[in-house]
Amino acid sequence: MEAYGRFTRPSTQLSAVTLDKGPASIESAYDAALAAPDVLFKVRAAQEGGMDAVLIDCMGDPGLEPAREAVFIPVVGPAQVSMHLAAALAHRFSVITVLKQTIPSVQLQVQGYGLMDKVASVRAVEIPVLEMERDVHGLAGAVVEEAARAVVEDGAHIIIPGCTEMFGLASEVQEGLARRDCEVPVIEPAAVAVKMAEALVDMGLSHSKRSYPTPPEKVVVGYP
Amino acid sequence: MEAYGRFTRPSTQLSAVTLDKGPASIESAYDAALAAPDVLFKVRAAQEGGMDAVLIDCMGDPGLEPAREAVFIPVVGPAQVSMHLAAALAHRFSVITVLKQTIPSVQLQVQGYGLMDKVASVRAVEIPVLEMERDVHGLAGAVVEEAARAVVEDGAHIIIPGCTEMFGLASEVQEGLARRDCEVPVIEPAAVAVKMAEALVDMGLSHSKRSYPTPPEKVVVGYP
Amino acid sequence: MEAYGRFTRPSTQLSAVTLDKGPASIESAYDAALAAPDVLFKVRAAQEGGMDAVLIDCMGDPGLEPAREAVFIPVVGPAQVSMHLAAALAHRFSVITVLKQTIPSVQLQVQGYGLMDKVASVRAVEIPVLEMERDVHGLAGAVVEEAARAVVEDGAHIIIPGCTEMFGLASEVQEGLARRDCEVPVIEPAAVAVKMAEALVDMGLSHSKRSYPTPPEKVVVGYP
Amino acid sequence: MEAYGRFTRPSTQLSAVTLDKGPASIESAYDAALAAPDVLFKVRAAQEGGMDAVLIDCMGDPGLEPAREAVFIPVVGPAQVSMHLAAALAHRFSVITVLKQTIPSVQLQVQGYGLMDKVASVRAVEIPVLEMERDVHGLAGAVVEEAARAVVEDGAHIIIPGCTEMFGLASEVQEGLARRDCEVPVIEPAAVAVKMAEALVDMGLSHSKRSYPTPPEKVVVGYP
Amino acid sequence: MEAYGRFTRPSTQLSAVTLDKGPASIESAYDAALAAPDVLFKVRAAQEGGMDAVLIDCMGDPGLEPAREAVFIPVVGPAQVSMHLAAALAHRFSVITVLKQTIPSVQLQVQGYGLMDKVASVRAVEIPVLEMERDVHGLAGAVVEEAARAVVEDGAHIIIPGCTEMFGLASEVQEGLARRDCEVPVIEPAAVAVKMAEALVDMGLSHSKRSYPTPPEKVVVGYP
Amino acid sequence: MEAYGRFTRPSTQLSAVTLDKGPASIESAYDAALAAPDVLFKVRAAQEGGMDAVLIDCMGDPGLEPAREAVFIPVVGPAQVSMHLAAALAHRFSVITVLKQTIPSVQLQVQGYGLMDKVASVRAVEIPVLEMERDVHGLAGAVVEEAARAVVEDGAHIIIPGCTEMFGLASEVQEGLARRDCEVPVIEPAAVAVKMAEALVDMGLSHSKRSYPTPPEKVVVGYP
Repeated sequence: MEAYGRFTRPSTQLSAVTLDKGPASIESAYDAALAAPDVLFKVRAAQEGGMDAVLIDCMGDPGLEPAREAVFIPVVGPAQVSMHLAAALAHRFSVITVLKQTIPSVQLQVQGYGLMDKVASVRAVEIPVLEMERDVHGLAGAVVEEAARAVVEDGAHIIIPGCTEMFGLASEVQEGLARRDCEVPVIEPAAVAVKMAEALVDMGLSHSKRSYPTPPEKVVVGYP
Repeated sequence: MEAYGRFTRPSTQLSAVTLDKGPASIESAYDAALAAPDVLFKVRAAQEGGMDAVLIDCMGDPGLEPAREAVFIPVVGPAQVSMHLAAALAHRFSVITVLKQTIPSVQLQVQGYGLMDKVASVRAVEIPVLEMERDVHGLAGAVVEEAARAVVEDGAHIIIPGCTEMFGLASEVQEGLARRDCEVPVIEPAAVAVKMAEALVDMGLSHSKRSYPTPPEKVVVGYP
Repeated sequence: MEAYGRFTRPSTQLSAVTLDKGPASIESAYDAALAAPDVLFKVRAAQEGGMDAVLIDCMGDPGLEPAREAVFIPVVGPAQVSMHLAAALAHRFSVITVLKQTIPSVQLQVQGYGLMDKVASVRAVEIPVLEMERDVHGLAGAVVEEAARAVVEDGAHIIIPGCTEMFGLASEVQEGLARRDCEVPVIEPAAVAVKMAEALVDMGLSHSKRSYPTPPEKVVVGYP
Repeated sequence: MEAYGRFTRPSTQLSAVTLDKGPASIESAYDAALAAPDVLFKVRAAQEGGMDAVLIDCMGDPGLEPAREAVFIPVVGPAQVSMHLAAALAHRFSVITVLKQTIPSVQLQVQGYGLMDKVASVRAVEIPVLEMERDVHGLAGAVVEEAARAVVEDGAHIIIPGCTEMFGLASEVQEGLARRDCEVPVIEPAAVAVKMAEALVDMGLSHSKRSYPTPPEKVVVGYP
Repeated sequence: MEAYGRFTRPSTQLSAVTLDKGPASIESAYDAALAAPDVLFKVRAAQEGGMDAVLIDCMGDPGLEPAREAVFIPVVGPAQVSMHLAAALAHRFSVITVLKQTIPSVQLQVQGYGLMDKVASVRAVEIPVLEMERDVHGLAGAVVEEAARAVVEDGAHIIIPGCTEMFGLASEVQEGLARRDCEVPVIEPAAVAVKMAEALVDMGLSHSKRSYPTPPEKVVVGYP
Repeated sequence: MEAYGRFTRPSTQLSAVTLDKGPASIESAYDAALAAPDVLFKVRAAQEGGMDAVLIDCMGDPGLEPAREAVFIPVVGPAQVSMHLAAALAHRFSVITVLKQTIPSVQLQVQGYGLMDKVASVRAVEIPVLEMERDVHGLAGAVVEEAARAVVEDGAHIIIPGCTEMFGLASEVQEGLARRDCEVPVIEPAAVAVKMAEALVDMGLSHSKRSYPTPPEKVVVGYP
């Protein structure tokens, strides 16, 4: 929540769904699938608690689509809104993710959002999520390294840091790129998610229930 | 399992993952997300139990991608293999699903499998899963009705019944279409899934671990 | 400017580029081409005048790409940001434009923004821009009419009113759709443009100069 | 036929169409066009002779589409079924073909099968077909070499050996890749073709006559 | 040849490959496959005979790709050049073909030429080729009928008559469309093929041998 | 006009719209937008002056779409027709443009013409237009250099010189490529534009007014 708090206004009630149940970090479709049920319960609780909108606190946007089925208030995934913003500001974006092995799932995510024509590359710093926290400065340097390659070798025109552990580093990365003579805008996904959620609340807009219809009521076994 | 048993050989150990935990039926992304964790645990148990391959017993293929990350043995989703077979046998296929509100998720599924250019339409019989069981004959008639429309109006050249409740009805549907002068092949997804699983086992082939890498070991909270 | 003023905050200096030179309305690529040079001069003037961001006051986004080449401050086209927002909130959107003969240019616009996979249809109310002003209520009814067809016949899940003359009508259209039993969200492009411009200013973000490089200085003949 | 015989069951009557008329090997669209008429006559003869299904014994799948027009029994092209299987088991596949100059026709083939989004690359060992037979072990080494490049440089997650001369080498290639630390599954196209043909026969399925309609009867000049 | 002769200049030596061997007409992939070998031999003979360029006298462009492999002089398929010209003159084109059952192969042809985004529809007059010759006026009326539907129902902006039997009817069809208030340009494929061949000869241009490499010399059995 | 004059016949009245108002050269979307209004006025004047067709004398095809709205006679953009011809003669083409910063707009242009699947790369010689004129021979060498890279590194099968300053150099570039062992055809865009315009005039064909409808008459402010 802290990553998002920097960007919020006092007047809007945003709930950032943090992932305290499920796996300790999300680095695979497997992790995301285990995390999703708790996201769904928290999103429903947020709506029942009168929240104006919900942010999913993970760049995998785990549970985004099913959560939108479950509620009427806006559910914002930081990756989805960051990718659409990047696509509006530049011809091609690159995502810098955590592990090489997560690259395929990020590519599937881009494909799911219909933005394959706008992606230059997905690259990885190859540092596990749980180790990132220990060395934030080293992390920023590693992101600059891969982002520079994305600009020079892959033709990226804008960069999206692809993990919540990288939240807050956008301006440091942008400066690092400028020092290497390959400046491009760097998206701050936490900020984009908050701004988008606030804008949706202000405009009285939410996701379409024709795309995300409310599931039929039925017996669910195995969850408290 | 029964739907699959008709098609299996005695010599291969196939495990069909039935969904007895989670929601009583899968008619939404929400249902699928709640079903996925139990799929994952069952798939892992199948591998540990020495099974040769695993079938996911739902046309939403819930948990297919994360399950493949978790194990080395083939994990077969009936929708994925049916759609690829349909694409190989005809220029365009249509899927007949359950509810109109599940059409968007089937379309996303087709998109995720990279087969959008091969789909003529997704149509729905508009009968809830749990009611289908009561009137199988009426169900077959309803599938014929929508399949005929898919052929005549949408240009479908082959039909995929899109719900496990429709399993076993392929030849009845194909005959119904012939009687209406719009005969096309009708896929039996349970059969395709079994044949594909057996073929993979025979050939010693499985999914690529570069596409579905084993997730890093980590603490998981909230599951038994 | 008035259409945008309703949505702006006092703290941000936004310049809405109104089209008082060039053609009296924009209903063709020809009109847009004649309007573009004045847009460019006004956008440059806005940057020199210390504006934080610029909005182009036309759903054809005339001059969006060349204007971004000319300046560093964010230049926001209401169509581009509305289409990306619609794509993030729903599987498929429809645009309701003015004349049937403008449909091809809207389709080219969608293609240029890389969102062809997300568009259900482009429809027209077939009322010339300059006549719209005289009968705003009739206009709203005509938009509801076409939007309802987009939902029912084309599978639209969200609606974008495609002309500045329709600005301010979003909630009236949404209510009209609800009364006809085909409720979907309706985007208010003026609001989206303002929110996006404010968000970009707040985040210190702008378009990528790698996508929109500053043109080389050179002699220009024929303009004051 | 020998390449296929290893994988067949005694109970199914499969006819593998070998190319003894036409060019001595298929390395171009020109070769394939000259080979096609004899394929058609053999496929018709196979149906008249009571065969259950037909395999085309060439990775160019020459005559696949016209042959399907000519008969009702399944006609299986090893390339088509191998590519669909590869697409179901991994995000991206690479094909290792014979000559560099055949790469464009393999790419056209992939495009024709609607699988361009799933292909990482097409590479060539640059050994003519007729020389391959003399040195099968050298051939396997050359395939490993290019397959390793496909994995490391092009991001391939699964490999398809793209010539009948490479049939039988899949496991040797897979082991070679493992020794170089870039193990991925390697498809055995002959096995896939047999398994798919047997599965189709078992399920009573064949290609759609709406996609491959029986040609009108007419005079044909110039063939015996 | 007669259809082309109207459009040629005396100064260029064009050879129109007529299909006197193979099937009596081309209405299927099967017919086209049987026709192709003779096309290849005639194209090679044309080059050896000093022709400047070759036209394939069939809208299926049978043998176009293998013929280009075989020779250095331009080989022009009337369908390919007509479709590219249509794509340059309008947003979407429709092809009016002969039989409904040839529609799938025309669609595959468009896909092979990379122009799927530019096609509005493929429609058929449902008159066999060999019957067309008997009633040319009736044929023109039938083409107008389907072309009008393509314009009104499918959004076609330009029409391509899709069979050599329709050659010479373009202006009659265009006038027929004008009388029905749905005028659009109608391509005359024979004229386009001649103009393109002459232009290529004038410019000293031909197809790229990197796309259509000369096939390796080898033994060919079964042809005179 | 001179570049085109070499290729024209005496019998056709072609008007080549040269850009003497607006910017001194076209190297950006900004330059093109400033050039467009004068193109439109000249194209209308050409029609009124009885010209048979109009050529736009710039590889950015500035004003092509709005100009077609304004008149009935054919308006030919050298880039559009060159790209379609290249797509018909080879699997993939590369464009050699002027400055690296113009690469994104050329890519958008290719996308707008619907030919993204046919482009191998866009490369730049990195010489400003106004400096090119001083050293034509050096320019030809620089084009050969980049074209050779396009062939070897990007898989280009045909080359399009992407600036009017390169007009007349096609055969010199083609010979340069042959000397480096990477011969491919090189398009002469000026020649293609003339040949296409003449062919359209000969055939009585022009662009579709359904794609490029005549703009409604209205007041235009700020132009003489």
